[in-house]
Formats: sequence, C-alpha cells, structure tokens
Amino acid sequence: MMRIAFQGEIGAYSEEALAALYPGAEKVPFPSFEAAFDAVVRSDVDRAVLPIENSLFGSVHQNYDLLLEHDLKILAEVQLRIRHQLLAVAGASLGDIRTVTSHPQAIGQCRSFLKKHLPDAHIVPAYDTAGAAKMIAEAGDVSSAAIASRAAASEYHLQTLAEDIESNHANYTRFLALGRPDANANEGLAQSSLPASSHDPTFKTSLLYAQKENVPGGLFKSLAVFALRDIDLFKIESRPLVGSPGQYVFYLDLKGHLDEEPIRHALRHLEEVAANVKVLGSFLQGQTVE
Amino acid sequence: MMRIAFQGEIGAYSEEALAALYPGAEKVPFPSFEAAFDAVVRSDVDRAVLPIENSLFGSVHQNYDLLLEHDLKILAEVQLRIRHQLLAVAGASLGDIRTVTSHPQAIGQCRSFLKKHLPDAHIVPAYDTAGAAKMIAEAGDVSSAAIASRAAASEYHLQTLAEDIESNHANYTRFLALGRPDANANEGLAQSSLPASSHDPTFKTSLLYAQKENVPGGLFKSLAVFALRDIDLFKIESRPLVGSPGQYVFYLDLKGHLDEEPIRHALRHLEEVAANVKVLGSFLQGQTVE
Repeated sequence: MMRIAFQGEIGAYSEEALAALYPGAEKVPFPSFEAAFDAVVRSDVDRAVLPIENSLFGSVHQNYDLLLEHDLKILAEVQLRIRHQLLAVAGASLGDIRTVTSHPQAIGQCRSFLKKHLPDAHIVPAYDTAGAAKMIAEAGDVSSAAIASRAAASEYHLQTLAEDIESNHANYTRFLALGRPDANANEGLAQSSLPASSHDPTFKTSLLYAQKENVPGGLFKSLAVFALRDIDLFKIESRPLVGSPGQYVFYLDLKGHLDEEPIRHALRHLEEVAANVKVLGSFLQGQTVE
Repeated sequence: MMRIAFQGEIGAYSEEALAALYPGAEKVPFPSFEAAFDAVVRSDVDRAVLPIENSLFGSVHQNYDLLLEHDLKILAEVQLRIRHQLLAVAGASLGDIRTVTSHPQAIGQCRSFLKKHLPDAHIVPAYDTAGAAKMIAEAGDVSSAAIASRAAASEYHLQTLAEDIESNHANYTRFLALGRPDANANEGLAQSSLPASSHDPTFKTSLLYAQKENVPGGLFKSLAVFALRDIDLFKIESRPLVGSPGQYVFYLDLKGHLDEEPIRHALRHLEEVAANVKVLGSFLQGQTVE
C-alpha cells in the first residue's frame, strides 16, 4: 500500500484531494509543507499531495519555493472545490448552536451564512478546520458547531447542520502529487486521473525560471519561445525576488509533454534567454472534484 | 483631516501601511475589504489602504476582484516588511510566558522561534494579530504573550519581549491607496511618497484584462503591445476564470504613466487583442518600509 503525505490533520481539505488522486492509499499527516517534502525525499512516504494554487487566494508560493529547493517531480494534479459544512454532534440542531469554531479564513468565507442564521453565536478561532471538527466531536456539546470539510464530518462522525455555507462557491484549490525523480507517475493513481486510451490526453508541463541579466525584454522573449512553436500556456505568473529589485522568477504551465519535440526545442531555446530554468514535471491535466 | 479606511483592528499591519502613506490622517477600521471599498465609494472616507500582494503568499485576488467591480483608482503604493514581535504586558519576561496567542498564519511564521524559546507554551489561535495584542493587554496577565506588529505594541502599551521573530525575513506586503476617480492623487500623501522635483520619478500603471476569444496566442500578443514599444513590465500574472475553462484574466503592472504617448498607444493596441481592459491607475513606484 502506498503511503502519501499531506499537510494538516485527518479531515483537512488536503486529505480530500489525496483521496481523489490516490484512493485506498495510507494518508500520512505532516505539520508543515516542508516536513511533507522532506518525508518524500527521505523515502519515508511515496508521495506528497500539496496545494499549489487557490482560485480566491492565488499561488502557494511556499510550495513553489520548496519545489525549487527539493529534487521532486510533479506526477499528477487535481482541482478540488472547497465546500464548507456546518458540523455538530448527533442530536444537535441549528437552533441549539451558541458557539461556532473554525480557522479564521473559513469563518470569513461563511460570514454571510453566520450573520443570517447564527447572528448571536460566539465565534472561536481555531488552527485548522479539521482540528475544530475534532474538538467539537470530543467535547460532545450540542450547542457547539465547527466549519469544516465533508471529510471531517465523516472522520469525526459529525452530522451536517448546513451544507456548502461558503459565500463564494467559486473556491477551488489545485493540488499536486509529488514524487521522487525515479517515481512511476501512474502508480497508485486513481483511474480517473490516468489517460483513457480511447482519446487524446492533455498533458501539462510545469516550470520555473528567472530573468537573465542583460537580456532586454527577457519576459517577452521567454514567452516567444513558446508562441513561435504554437505551444499554449495555462499559467504565467511573475514573482518579484525579494532583495533583488527588478528581478523576477516566473511560474509557467504549458500545454504538452516533455517528450514532445517542439517542447524540447522550446526548452532549449528558453535556456538561451532565461536563467535557472527548472522543469518540475509533465503530467496529465487534472480532474475537477466538485 | 483626511479619513482613511483599512481592514482589521487598530494595530494591524494595514494600519502601519496607512500611517506610512498618510501620516496624521484619521484611521478608520473596517471588518472586511469590501466594507472598506464601499466606504470610499459612498464618500464616508477619503481613501482606503488595502493589501494587494505578499512576497510569501502572493496576490490578494479578492482585492483585484473588488477593483474590477468598483470604480476606484490607485493613487499610491507602499511595500511594508512584516515584522512579528512577541508582546506582553509590562513586568513580564520571556521566562514567565506560558501562553502565546496570535493569528494562525503569524504563529506558523514564528514556529522556529517558539520551538526554541517557548517549547512548552500553550498556543491559542486568534482572529487577527492586533486583536490578540488587545486581548493580552486587557487581561494584564504576565504569563501571556501575543505575536503582533510594532503598531500593536505602541497602541496597547505592550512591551516587546523579542523582536522580529519571524523565520523568513523576506516577508513583504504591498499596499495600495485607493480613491474615487476624481481624487487628487497627491493630497495628504507622505512627503516620501511624492515625486522629488530634483530627479526623474518612476511611474507604474496597473491594469487588468481578459483573453479575447478567437485570438490565438492572445497572451503573447498582449505582451507584444508593450515589448514593441520598449515598455517594461513590473508584474504579469494570469488567473484562471473559474467556470470558464481555458479563459484567463491578467494582472499587469507596467513602467510608465497613462499620460505618456507610448503608453496611450500601447493601451489602444491592447484593446485590439484583449478583452475587458480596465486601467486601475498610474502612480509613483512606492517606497519600501523596512
């Protein structure tokens, strides 16, 4: 059985992403992204499933930094809709609730619901949504509710008092599955994440690079590398290098696989106009889990 | 006296940014970014100072969305280093501390310090850093500390037990000053944020646009508009439009002012190859407050 790292507690949203990519695998929680990366490098686990970008909050720069520092490759991706549930112990009803606990970000995303349905509830911040769910399950008090995932409801045997209470339903997080460079990308992956032999799968290749000094219009030239070969881009993001004014690092996701000749030519061309090109992997465009 | 909106409590990092841009102005706290935008639109306040991007956590997409929905313009920017302080009431010392409270993100950023100096402290999450500081000031207990800003220390008359305890010192947040379209951009602005007559100031122009359907290589063409006119870019970021697979919105910061002829030509050219171009304003490149 494969062992897969994720960040957070059992019942965290990351665990839902992990289950979508690697059904049946052993889920191994870690307190930080860095600890999850290190566990893969040390072969304590086979893979890590970590967030890389959220539709409301943007790229998880910390994980891009860790990808730059560690020699891991991207094997797969999945996009998960973040649905917040109002959870309580069996026997509770919405009218009973006097206290609501969750991570401040989750509470913020459910402010309209709370204002309308629980205007007088006492709001107690927590470290993470799953921890909040665990806490109310252990306390067993019918007047307390937590805002957390469906996975937390199932893990801690809580009932759902209200479903999908987030104000903005367009809240999606993209997660990556990371492995060591010699990993077999398809091993253990969910059937839905594998290419169907019957049609043409879409591959993504993800890379990082920096501006080369003394190359005027460097960003434009680096994109020309792909445009000249009709290679489509899924993502482009610049990030200022702190401490180096005017210097940037770029995140790029392009359409195609490293094995394809135009992509190989484009990457060779990119080396001419950009610095520190690091290819993070080629993988199948992921499913969206609603 | 000008009245300036910010999000959070008195003592929040946003208040430090506000003070750097508008010294002497009245600071008006709001519970959400949206409430701060609305207050400017309704003329309840003169300006809002809000975060737009952090060096570790990326763009604040919610404020880009609000800029798209509201008819406000960017008047100025400032980049603030986020320095976390360990604060306690007078008479406390590091050896006394049994409980540390702060926002989970701030606690996470100070994990190494806490592990080394306060390994046995009980960690209590809070909504925001300034609220945590206020709470320990009110409680007056020498065994409790909060992680918060220097502004919070001064506001709540707390002593600093340890300075700059964040693990990653490269933590900067860029804030924008927003006003109504008819605002006088220089009014009330700190002297350091105004152009020195003696040298050539650097202007930034910030804009949003979407891909035009049926324009192949639309992103590349939209950047060519600037490259062909030797206009430098400070920032480029693509963000997938949720619900419209393959459609993106772009955030762009370029070097130059809307009044300059090449910029005006470039924007006219951009309208040909991109959709929904929205110029957010031209403003002086901001100072960094260390």
